[in-house]
Amino acid sequence: MRIARFSIDGNVAFGAVEGDSPEELVLDIIKGIPFTDFELSGTKVPLSKVRLLPPVLPNKVVAFGRNYADHAAELGHEAPAAPFAFFKPSTSVIGSGDAIMYPSFSEEVHYEAELAVVIGRMCREVPRERVQDVILGYTCANDVTARDVQKREAQWARAKGFDSSCPLGPWVETGISLKEAADLTIQCTVNGEQRQLGSTSQMIHSIEDLIINITEAMTLLPGDVILTGTPAGVGPLGVGDEVAVTIQGIGTLTNKVIKRG
Amino acid sequence: MRIARFSIDGNVAFGAVEGDSPEELVLDIIKGIPFTDFELSGTKVPLSKVRLLPPVLPNKVVAFGRNYADHAAELGHEAPAAPFAFFKPSTSVIGSGDAIMYPSFSEEVHYEAELAVVIGRMCREVPRERVQDVILGYTCANDVTARDVQKREAQWARAKGFDSSCPLGPWVETGISLKEAADLTIQCTVNGEQRQLGSTSQMIHSIEDLIINITEAMTLLPGDVILTGTPAGVGPLGVGDEVAVTIQGIGTLTNKVIKRG
Repeated sequence: MRIARFSIDGNVAFGAVEGDSPEELVLDIIKGIPFTDFELSGTKVPLSKVRLLPPVLPNKVVAFGRNYADHAAELGHEAPAAPFAFFKPSTSVIGSGDAIMYPSFSEEVHYEAELAVVIGRMCREVPRERVQDVILGYTCANDVTARDVQKREAQWARAKGFDSSCPLGPWVETGISLKEAADLTIQCTVNGEQRQLGSTSQMIHSIEDLIINITEAMTLLPGDVILTGTPAGVGPLGVGDEVAVTIQGIGTLTNKVIKRG
Repeated sequence: MRIARFSIDGNVAFGAVEGDSPEELVLDIIKGIPFTDFELSGTKVPLSKVRLLPPVLPNKVVAFGRNYADHAAELGHEAPAAPFAFFKPSTSVIGSGDAIMYPSFSEEVHYEAELAVVIGRMCREVPRERVQDVILGYTCANDVTARDVQKREAQWARAKGFDSSCPLGPWVETGISLKEAADLTIQCTVNGEQRQLGSTSQMIHSIEDLIINITEAMTLLPGDVILTGTPAGVGPLGVGDEVAVTIQGIGTLTNKVIKRG
């Protein structure tokens, strides 16, 4: 099931996305929230009539660095022996169709296409055999990065945490197993030109490893999001560009870059 | 005014702390929340009868590294020319009297006494002359750090973001001006022995500089917290230790270290 979060007439709701062709998608409005048992209301609205929101409002986004060897190499780094994580704040999260605001303090903003894992239940110290149980589903992410700032600041709060630097969407796909998630094509285009093309099978540390690693240290809450790293091919975005992250079996996350007003 | 957040009979409320001697402190319960105009109810409860909670529930905690030259030096670092920030997640926040849970993945957990700035209103791109307006007040913080993990992991999400690694409290003091905040004695004791003694006047980058720096990149929300760095003298904590951070004009934040259960 594809679960979207959207606003219509000023109200926020979740809905199950039905249909195949982009023009004909319909939302069946969900009664309640998708982190507990829920029912579909049967009330349907065309996706074209609503504003998509970020599919979840994460309390925290935990992102893992250099988890694809070819990307670590292109930035001149060794792939890390153990995973390492950083945070993107809730204030950085936007949805598909929202604008990435080019920040005033950077002159080199990069896209980074990533598979995002959406956590479904509160958890800590998750054993390997329970990882599947704590995952609600998957969505597309763009770990937008001020590369120049990242190079000069020892920690990446500003470089990777600025407003609008965490596009997530378009929805959460709940029908992908952990095994399937480990071999999905991931692609990034800018103005329709392909810039990144990889597979989640290239991850150095698996989704299981990442969730075990982070929950050894901290509690994850429903709606928290794990970003799993980006394949090679990162590069600059400019004002006016349209960047799209497409992941097999999930969908496409599209954002335009505007000047921060 | 000292504003505490507490629970009594299962309800959470804010209260104004009245009185001077620790045994005789009383809370005048606040109607509403302290981020908007509020009134005191006149209903009073002894502080000894409630459980203190973290004085705010931050959406994000933004912490600045190496902002005291003597501390940067003791860890073998140059003091940074520009501020740099990292995040501690909401799941790391505990209040005064709560336990610091010694994490399983570290063998060297350190205390770091810090002045915490509590943000009072949503803000971004705050100009110098408006910094005072966005501050609700100040509290004590302990930027508890798994030093061994910090040394091995390029980014500090696990080292400084584990559950219970961000004690805040005991309350927010709203009656301190920015000028006064720039010269407060800050002290850390472990089991009553002094380990850190400094002054906020030793900060390399001022509170104004830090808030300008971070809001250039991101929106701060009411209840967000800025940690301003620690003076020299950091060192290890062990299970059973009681660590106390005292800041002049604010109060004392006390936490015991227990084994994570």
